[in-house]
Amino acid sequence: MSILTIRSVTLRKLRWRTQGRTQDRSGFYPVAWDDGIATQTGYVLELATDAGITGEYTWTTGVNGHAAQQIESVAGWLVGQDAFQRERIWADLHRAWRKYDRLGIGPIDCALWDIAGKAYEASLSQMLGGYRERLPAYASTLFGDDEGAGPLGTPEAFADFARECVDLGYRAVKIHGWNNGDIEREIRNVRGVRTAVGPDIALMLDPSGAYETFGDVLSVGRALDEEQFYWYEDPGKEGGTSAFAYKKLRELIRTPLLQGEHVRGLQAHADQVLAGGTDFMRADAGLDGGVTGVLKIAHLAEALGIDVELHGPSPVHRHIMSALRNSNFYEMGLVAPSLRQISFGGFADYSDDLAEVDANGTVGIPRGHGLATPLDQEWIAAHQIDELVFD
Amino acid sequence: MSILTIRSVTLRKLRWRTQGRTQDRSGFYPVAWDDGIATQTGYVLELATDAGITGEYTWTTGVNGHAAQQIESVAGWLVGQDAFQRERIWADLHRAWRKYDRLGIGPIDCALWDIAGKAYEASLSQMLGGYRERLPAYASTLFGDDEGAGPLGTPEAFADFARECVDLGYRAVKIHGWNNGDIEREIRNVRGVRTAVGPDIALMLDPSGAYETFGDVLSVGRALDEEQFYWYEDPGKEGGTSAFAYKKLRELIRTPLLQGEHVRGLQAHADQVLAGGTDFMRADAGLDGGVTGVLKIAHLAEALGIDVELHGPSPVHRHIMSALRNSNFYEMGLVAPSLRQISFGGFADYSDDLAEVDANGTVGIPRGHGLATPLDQEWIAAHQIDELVFD
Repeated sequence: MSILTIRSVTLRKLRWRTQGRTQDRSGFYPVAWDDGIATQTGYVLELATDAGITGEYTWTTGVNGHAAQQIESVAGWLVGQDAFQRERIWADLHRAWRKYDRLGIGPIDCALWDIAGKAYEASLSQMLGGYRERLPAYASTLFGDDEGAGPLGTPEAFADFARECVDLGYRAVKIHGWNNGDIEREIRNVRGVRTAVGPDIALMLDPSGAYETFGDVLSVGRALDEEQFYWYEDPGKEGGTSAFAYKKLRELIRTPLLQGEHVRGLQAHADQVLAGGTDFMRADAGLDGGVTGVLKIAHLAEALGIDVELHGPSPVHRHIMSALRNSNFYEMGLVAPSLRQISFGGFADYSDDLAEVDANGTVGIPRGHGLATPLDQEWIAAHQIDELVFD
Repeated sequence: MSILTIRSVTLRKLRWRTQGRTQDRSGFYPVAWDDGIATQTGYVLELATDAGITGEYTWTTGVNGHAAQQIESVAGWLVGQDAFQRERIWADLHRAWRKYDRLGIGPIDCALWDIAGKAYEASLSQMLGGYRERLPAYASTLFGDDEGAGPLGTPEAFADFARECVDLGYRAVKIHGWNNGDIEREIRNVRGVRTAVGPDIALMLDPSGAYETFGDVLSVGRALDEEQFYWYEDPGKEGGTSAFAYKKLRELIRTPLLQGEHVRGLQAHADQVLAGGTDFMRADAGLDGGVTGVLKIAHLAEALGIDVELHGPSPVHRHIMSALRNSNFYEMGLVAPSLRQISFGGFADYSDDLAEVDANGTVGIPRGHGLATPLDQEWIAAHQIDELVFD
């Protein structure tokens, strides 16, 4: 059994500015905005080994400093570990961070898979037994802006943009509406988008916890039933985690529910689905313990006879989805008329761009070794604002 | 994404004679017998690829011709497949054999993992992120003989053999009693073995479906409670598959139940455990769809917060268990005073021998590439009775 020892852990913090989005009034949520400039932060984790192979993983979305802080807290321990022993490292960190959200596992695990792929000269997709060459994608919109004047300010604007996505080839579109919980506008939006794209496009709605009451959640859900939506995702302000509430919702509407983005921990995902709290399962390599964590959730879903949908775009998710039978759509987002490309510019030869789909609405898989997405070191250096090295 | 095309499928049938065991009067069950000679059959599957790499898997136990027959039925289809696309091949065969026990998937999937490991120059353990260098093992006995005169003919003989296993280093012993369902003798056996090994050894009982009635199952179960057994496995003649019955048994005794050896299919395993039909899960690379199938079951168990125990000895199981946190014991069996080594002699440098454990009762992991157990071609050729080649 060969050993590949981790010799150093480098954590780079990046900052860059993205045009076409801004934060809403609260500062919590990104919304589409033509002239808006959003300041974004991201991280690059590098695990260098004594064999000269370095595993890399980047993450850019959400409150990504949480993961960085957890990784920093174990970096000294990581140095000296055998990079091939992913299951032990996963289990050790799963216990170590039992009190927390365990966000740090994801980047570490993904970087370890990158190391393995580089050592084996195989892509992550291939290591996982992957076979899908093209993945059906959905255009996943930014939130609508509070002012109603931006590129996704009105139901009409959402309808136009959805139509445009369909013209690009997408066979599925997911709406993130507004963050203020205006139910009447949400329902108008749902109906308008369905009318714009016709009956054959899969539509999803993700209010991301914007609706105040269960009554509101139910009212919009009834509209989704009528408009034949593909799934309804995390609508309620309790955070999409109450299995009791969504089991009840399931009894009252027919649209499938997709919950789980806000559930952390493998066993919590299991308990949620077994309690009847969701129809589709949700998994995210960044949030749910990397490739290893997503596989465990995907296998749970498969054993239960249901599907798992990966959250958000990333090279890692393309690789994993290429090896999953029970997964329907790759999430291309968040996009808007004002912002058509995921803004991280740190990959040398990879991007998630709205226009990347082919005429069938599908995207491809990175080719190469490991995650198969080498970094653009020039761009990284130009946007780096901090660096921590442990060795 | 590189491609490794399967160019030929070779299925070899072997036959050999093993001293120290025989069949019971029915002919269904192996029992220990000093001068007994059992005729055994086994198979070798070879998947040769266009890169010159050949994946190999051998299987020897049970009614192993079932798997061979299924493999033969798809061999023409296998030729031309990309050997790296394990998940697709698994899913295709899982559907194709939906009406049957799907035994053919196991050997095919294991041979595909062997190919991947040889291509990556990594062991199966390493590919799986493995980390356990030593595995706690249990001595798993042959059945007692009907006559009461053989090496495992009486409770006293079982007690002596259990004591001998403990002296060899084992910290756990599993008893397969008699096949006639004599409850009074079974209980005497359980008590005698406990007395012989003392309170600190993990003891398991596996009647393998020998007990006629639920009342009998319960009577022995109460003795296991008193003797503090580690698990109680497949006692009832319904075959160990009735989730209703074992949920009821769970309410009546405290000894943990291990069911699932007789359940085929990933979703059936899930439904059994979710219905309360077992405490430990059971998985077998040969019976449950290879490495891929075992991982899915193991991940299900992990998500549910419980353990999975691998069925029977094999190099593949050692590799897999080295990458599982939630698994307790490696099954070294079936053994008896008259038969101390698993009788397949086709490996060049691997065997499962009763005396192989160290002073802590643990065994090691094969080292090398893929399954890391090259075949003894001379032995194979000497015992081959049939060969089918598809190319």
